[in-house]
Amino acid sequence: MPVTATPPRSLLAVVLAAGKGTRMRSDLPKVLHPLAGRPMLAHVLASVREAGATDIAVVVEPGRADVAAAIEAAAPGARVFPQAERLGTAHAVLAARPALEAGADDVVIAFGDTPLIRPETLARLRAPLAEGAAVAVLAFEAADPTGYGRVLAEGERVVAIREEKDASPDERRVRLSNAGLMALSGALALDLLGRIGNDNAAGEYYLPDAVALAVADGRRVAVVPVEEAEAQGVNDRVQLAAAEAAIQARLRREAMLAGATLIAPETVFLSHDTRLGRDVVVEPHVVFGPGVVVGDACVIHAFSHLEKAELAPGVQVGPYARLRPGARLAEGARIGNFVEVKNAAIGAGAKVNHLSYVGDAEVGARANLGAGTITCNYDGVNKHRTVIGEGAFIGSNSALVAPVAVGAGAYVGSGSVITDDVPPEALALGRARQAVKPGWARGKGKA
Amino acid sequence: MPVTATPPRSLLAVVLAAGKGTRMRSDLPKVLHPLAGRPMLAHVLASVREAGATDIAVVVEPGRADVAAAIEAAAPGARVFPQAERLGTAHAVLAARPALEAGADDVVIAFGDTPLIRPETLARLRAPLAEGAAVAVLAFEAADPTGYGRVLAEGERVVAIREEKDASPDERRVRLSNAGLMALSGALALDLLGRIGNDNAAGEYYLPDAVALAVADGRRVAVVPVEEAEAQGVNDRVQLAAAEAAIQARLRREAMLAGATLIAPETVFLSHDTRLGRDVVVEPHVVFGPGVVVGDACVIHAFSHLEKAELAPGVQVGPYARLRPGARLAEGARIGNFVEVKNAAIGAGAKVNHLSYVGDAEVGARANLGAGTITCNYDGVNKHRTVIGEGAFIGSNSALVAPVAVGAGAYVGSGSVITDDVPPEALALGRARQAVKPGWARGKGKA
Amino acid sequence: MPVTATPPRSLLAVVLAAGKGTRMRSDLPKVLHPLAGRPMLAHVLASVREAGATDIAVVVEPGRADVAAAIEAAAPGARVFPQAERLGTAHAVLAARPALEAGADDVVIAFGDTPLIRPETLARLRAPLAEGAAVAVLAFEAADPTGYGRVLAEGERVVAIREEKDASPDERRVRLSNAGLMALSGALALDLLGRIGNDNAAGEYYLPDAVALAVADGRRVAVVPVEEAEAQGVNDRVQLAAAEAAIQARLRREAMLAGATLIAPETVFLSHDTRLGRDVVVEPHVVFGPGVVVGDACVIHAFSHLEKAELAPGVQVGPYARLRPGARLAEGARIGNFVEVKNAAIGAGAKVNHLSYVGDAEVGARANLGAGTITCNYDGVNKHRTVIGEGAFIGSNSALVAPVAVGAGAYVGSGSVITDDVPPEALALGRARQAVKPGWARGKGKA
Repeated sequence: MPVTATPPRSLLAVVLAAGKGTRMRSDLPKVLHPLAGRPMLAHVLASVREAGATDIAVVVEPGRADVAAAIEAAAPGARVFPQAERLGTAHAVLAARPALEAGADDVVIAFGDTPLIRPETLARLRAPLAEGAAVAVLAFEAADPTGYGRVLAEGERVVAIREEKDASPDERRVRLSNAGLMALSGALALDLLGRIGNDNAAGEYYLPDAVALAVADGRRVAVVPVEEAEAQGVNDRVQLAAAEAAIQARLRREAMLAGATLIAPETVFLSHDTRLGRDVVVEPHVVFGPGVVVGDACVIHAFSHLEKAELAPGVQVGPYARLRPGARLAEGARIGNFVEVKNAAIGAGAKVNHLSYVGDAEVGARANLGAGTITCNYDGVNKHRTVIGEGAFIGSNSALVAPVAVGAGAYVGSGSVITDDVPPEALALGRARQAVKPGWARGKGKA
Repeated sequence: MPVTATPPRSLLAVVLAAGKGTRMRSDLPKVLHPLAGRPMLAHVLASVREAGATDIAVVVEPGRADVAAAIEAAAPGARVFPQAERLGTAHAVLAARPALEAGADDVVIAFGDTPLIRPETLARLRAPLAEGAAVAVLAFEAADPTGYGRVLAEGERVVAIREEKDASPDERRVRLSNAGLMALSGALALDLLGRIGNDNAAGEYYLPDAVALAVADGRRVAVVPVEEAEAQGVNDRVQLAAAEAAIQARLRREAMLAGATLIAPETVFLSHDTRLGRDVVVEPHVVFGPGVVVGDACVIHAFSHLEKAELAPGVQVGPYARLRPGARLAEGARIGNFVEVKNAAIGAGAKVNHLSYVGDAEVGARANLGAGTITCNYDGVNKHRTVIGEGAFIGSNSALVAPVAVGAGAYVGSGSVITDDVPPEALALGRARQAVKPGWARGKGKA
Repeated sequence: MPVTATPPRSLLAVVLAAGKGTRMRSDLPKVLHPLAGRPMLAHVLASVREAGATDIAVVVEPGRADVAAAIEAAAPGARVFPQAERLGTAHAVLAARPALEAGADDVVIAFGDTPLIRPETLARLRAPLAEGAAVAVLAFEAADPTGYGRVLAEGERVVAIREEKDASPDERRVRLSNAGLMALSGALALDLLGRIGNDNAAGEYYLPDAVALAVADGRRVAVVPVEEAEAQGVNDRVQLAAAEAAIQARLRREAMLAGATLIAPETVFLSHDTRLGRDVVVEPHVVFGPGVVVGDACVIHAFSHLEKAELAPGVQVGPYARLRPGARLAEGARIGNFVEVKNAAIGAGAKVNHLSYVGDAEVGARANLGAGTITCNYDGVNKHRTVIGEGAFIGSNSALVAPVAVGAGAYVGSGSVITDDVPPEALALGRARQAVKPGWARGKGKA
């Protein structure tokens, strides 16, 4: 959903995502390294979509099925263009020539490794095009501009982008630095890009050269400001961690302003899609993997770990609760410490408070599973389901060997191994009688 | 206990706690949101008590039994005054008119949503009254004063408090800003407050107007400085988290200076009343709920969670220990990983090292509970006690079905379900004999 | 291994480690307080070794066997000299007179409570000696120099070190401050140190006085700059935590740059010797004790705790995995939540996923231990081993009473207590048959 009213101009976003990322020292392509539970590239694609892109072209390293799959998941319908040779950023953009030829009104060029960029910023970046600018460059006041291309501007009108090595001493004192992202008039983009040469030391085609060409043509080049932090790229894992921290700070802040208490937000890790209801309390040290929805007034105690789980209002989990994919907790359910729930529906008001594993199961409302209850769902070959009826009581340290059903209101004695179905309201025991050898322990041995 | 010698002057503290707190987006009144394990308001009440308040009046939203209960818990004997209408801060103070009429020497006005204020600061705030000032205002040098009322002072003598909208350009450059807290001479308070009018855009009675009235009377108004951070109010959950962080930083620093090592203090969360002995070591990632006392030379390993628990000297817990209310660990006891202890006394040198639940129990000195030991304390209706004698050995994966007693020096075989008392020094077994079907697993199935 | 090519000059490092550390409020000598898993002093000794010290002398409080043992562990062969009386830093250095008399080319004096000092810095500190300087002092630009001795220099040549109390107003404005560490020409050291007097208020022999003596002799005294943070000493536990944070920041940064992802580095605690392979992912909230080696492409999920453990490539552990000393996980092994592994080899591809204790054990490749599996390794007197064969399947909630062996491909039924060896490919059951009492739970009681 666009965050600003989409103007009646079409927008092509070209996302450059072919970088090798050698400083990541990784077998995983740089743009697939995750942030807040999804690939870095997916953040950029989400931003261009929310900025109103009507067409998305992603330029990638050839032959990476994993990258293509991530693009299709994040932006279905986006077109993928391989960049066979690496001859500079302008060359990379031209790898998407068919998309450019389709003739969008506006073209925005973003980078797969600049994941903090917000849709609002992309909308601001393209805005000057509607007012006649040929090009708009995104720029930030660098705390230390060393190494950045300087944006030489008169007011909002850019005169040139000067690389560090070509800059005069006066120009080096300029702190306004090129963020790399650029918007181009769709009508001029192919012409400008096509005229960029490679007459430089590296023999590469540089995107910023589009600015000089447009200025030489007598066209207006606008500069659009951005905070330095938002424009930061990710080139190694230290910068990856910094980007993660920035995204987490945003997500935490949004969650708090929406009415969730994060007692120690700096210790809570959210995913891009975490949804927390009103008056939810999250204690310190909690990790949310993707796909978690938490209803109003839930309490997530410390040291809990949730992933693809749904919590109805008024649920309490933890400390030390692990909710794995498919955990669905009905209103007022309670999951306690050292408890793992996987692919299981826990009924309203049901309790699984201590040291339990509940997997592939259905637990009825108000049922109570004692400490150490284990659903034995795997027989070494297949997984089987356990069904526990409403109000059933499972005594501590019991093993429920699936497939098995315990009827509503039934009662399983502590320490039982339950292999056969238990009728409603029945008592089931599966344990040995106790034997005692008086005085035996005076001459202690193995038992 | 007052932190400064109480002067022979009586002190009435009026605490304004009726704010709606709509930006909290919460069903809980703002002043009841907890910080370091107790309501925000309780922090303010503790500060005014420690500053030597001889009378406390709290102005609250009418009809909130929860707020009244919190006040009684934090400051027994404090009087609660409902504010029926919301007509400004001066109007709110006058809701406590009966307390003002009682005629304390000094009056200090504090706010239920300014929880970081320290007793020392309140003592400094009232000090000028003893030296003849009619009013004293608390003020801070704001990093960015925009929006704050500016304190216009000549030396320590206040000339006026100027609201942002009424300030001249020169006055807006003043960074000294009104923190809101005020001390008033008890002899003059009712007169000054009573003369405050509501001739302003909002039609409200503003407490800072007392300054102009006192100055017009030719009386001295003093300014007392405070750090900006200490004067911060809480209006949303982002600010709530900031206040929590500030309080945690204080608590951690005090604990460290007193002789406890917090290896990574930023990951340790204390409660307002946590007591840590000398040479205690707290590893990273530990949460202390209220009511925890830790004796000298204890080690709290990582990922532990403690609440209303007492640890004698030399105890080790965790990692992943959960001590719930009523856990009492005698000298040298050892609670290990994935172990929950609730309402249980663990004897000197006793060990519960792995994956156990010990609730409603008494464990004798030097007893050893093996991995997976569970006290089955709940039968679905009532809770029952488990008593384990000195030096007893409970084999791993045993269930002790309460009420039950295991005698001193007794030995329970691994995997037993113990339903009947075990005499001292006896061996008890409650498990089935092993059967083997050779070759069965070649044609594998469910077991 | 020296970080710079060792010059052909011998180097004696004298490390002063006799300080009482009263502000630590501890029974443990200050220099033994650990940082990143080893004593503070060991960090200093590692730095002087890596800086190329050919001889190390440590001056200690007399009679502390624990300090001597820590020195021997960190720097085998280092000589330990007790300082019987405390008469100042110069006096302390002379406690190592026999080492000084051995006549090293260069002498560097470091401090046991300045643990952040890096070997590169020590190498820079001694460098001027090779160029003819008599003395080199380490100095930093203090943010607030109050209380520090000021280094009065002309260029790189020191004129004097002026203590705060002796400094003129102009001199007090100097921010260049003495870090304490010093390098001395070995040929001159004994002479200079021997001439330092104690004609001052405290009657102590101060090491910085060597500077004035050398200057008076017409010799060159060099100043070597260092960052203020690196020169910080540890005098209380707040500073101890700050030093820990600084070391952690270094370790995390190195791990990330080498190719490990730390999603939230500020929540991950490393030890000085933690080794993380390429493409290792460490989720938030993980603690590494000493002696952990993690192979390439391992994933350490949140809330895991590892100590003296070896992980082959492709292993996944956690969340909530506790690996204790002697845990050795072969390629592709999987340790899940609430699982403790101690002194156990887990075979390639083997899985221990839930709520288990595996101690003193050998688990074969591809074996699968169900939820709640416990190796009962301790009989109250001795520890025994459990051996599980390749591809064996241990049903959930089973207890394996060691010494015991489960053969390759064998199958243990859920809820069994296994006391006798199970032949390969056999089925073993050790559990009671289930009994049911229909309708019993209508009149509910204890079971």
